[in-house]
Amino acid sequence: MSTLTAERRLMELGIELPQPPQPLGAYVGAVQTGNLLFLSGTLPVEAGKAKYMGRVGAELTLEEGAAATRLAALNSLALARGHLGSLDKVTRIVRLSVALVTTADFQAHPKVADAASELLVSIFGRERISTRAVLGVSSLPLGACVETEMVFEVQR
Amino acid sequence: MSTLTAERRLMELGIELPQPPQPLGAYVGAVQTGNLLFLSGTLPVEAGKAKYMGRVGAELTLEEGAAATRLAALNSLALARGHLGSLDKVTRIVRLSVALVTTADFQAHPKVADAASELLVSIFGRERISTRAVLGVSSLPLGACVETEMVFEVQR
Amino acid sequence: MSTLTAERRLMELGIELPQPPQPLGAYVGAVQTGNLLFLSGTLPVEAGKAKYMGRVGAELTLEEGAAATRLAALNSLALARGHLGSLDKVTRIVRLSVALVTTADFQAHPKVADAASELLVSIFGRERISTRAVLGVSSLPLGACVETEMVFEVQR
Repeated sequence: MSTLTAERRLMELGIELPQPPQPLGAYVGAVQTGNLLFLSGTLPVEAGKAKYMGRVGAELTLEEGAAATRLAALNSLALARGHLGSLDKVTRIVRLSVALVTTADFQAHPKVADAASELLVSIFGRERISTRAVLGVSSLPLGACVETEMVFEVQR
Repeated sequence: MSTLTAERRLMELGIELPQPPQPLGAYVGAVQTGNLLFLSGTLPVEAGKAKYMGRVGAELTLEEGAAATRLAALNSLALARGHLGSLDKVTRIVRLSVALVTTADFQAHPKVADAASELLVSIFGRERISTRAVLGVSSLPLGACVETEMVFEVQR
Repeated sequence: MSTLTAERRLMELGIELPQPPQPLGAYVGAVQTGNLLFLSGTLPVEAGKAKYMGRVGAELTLEEGAAATRLAALNSLALARGHLGSLDKVTRIVRLSVALVTTADFQAHPKVADAASELLVSIFGRERISTRAVLGVSSLPLGACVETEMVFEVQR
């Protein structure tokens, strides 16, 4: 059992979180109520630009879908750190939801969504592992192929 | 900084909330647990009838999509007031989710969803602004083009 | 007003919950924070195999969609009991969300989703009835036609 904190793990993994994504309208990235932290949905956006546009299983391969999902999840984490100051305040990842734009016959959602789940486990450890819900949707803001949304339990 | 309450703002804006929409099955419009108030998804229904049916970007313009989203959000607020007695008990809007029926190539979800977000800001003020998640879906109950779902933090 | 507990009602209804479904990736079935229990999305899976694949309104009838939804909801309940030990610890069903794979012109989502809602009411009673949000989506993991996701309020 490692006793590394989330911020230490990030460093050891060589992961640098991006700047928190700017809201695309009249909302904010994070709202805390009690010790629950709700995050806005995040897209595979890098330096303000959407990447990985299209449907997983058609314009995008499974590997590209997974890379997009990991990028969206990094943006979720950037929102959390922007609010909390440090990811070490996260005591549990309560819920991860992943919405993927796919072809109608696509079935490999879990494999793609695991790019987000495995990122979370690598940073927060198995003891903070989340629930998950995954949907195939027909479109997403900016033409993105994936959106991740998270709820965290945090220290008050 | 205005010190107007939500109910006062509603009045000043000349907004009259509709009657809370009737559930379409074996569920209720609102459930409170601790100081979180979860609301059921609401549709652009007026006087019991669905309005704005079709896909935003095809049968419906962006403007019609926005009007539908505002109407759905008003119905969410009607559920909240029906439960709380007064919207002045809302201390924060924790989460807004907006599901839009769109064409496959639609990308302007944020613009449409802002009809709900801006309504909330105009009533509750910037200091109670929410997180947001927006999805493009393939269909909704009653053939509606949009569904809003909200979680509020409220006084116990 | 019946004073039967949820576990007694299950027995009287002759409902045997399945084994909790195995996660399809790096997540868990249930996470409790305070007295909220978040469950992962569940599919109409029986003995590890997906049933009822396709779109409700095309490959599947309304009745098959309802049977699938009931099965997915039983799997959600199995997750809850797996975590809690007994469903008698559930004090309220806070939120039920139902995602259905449908044809574009499908409108009878509430009827299909009621298979989950009515199951919950029959087990937990009207006094624990939930909010609900229902979406028509374009695809789901394993090709399933429905996914249910629940949040419970539970005794600590």
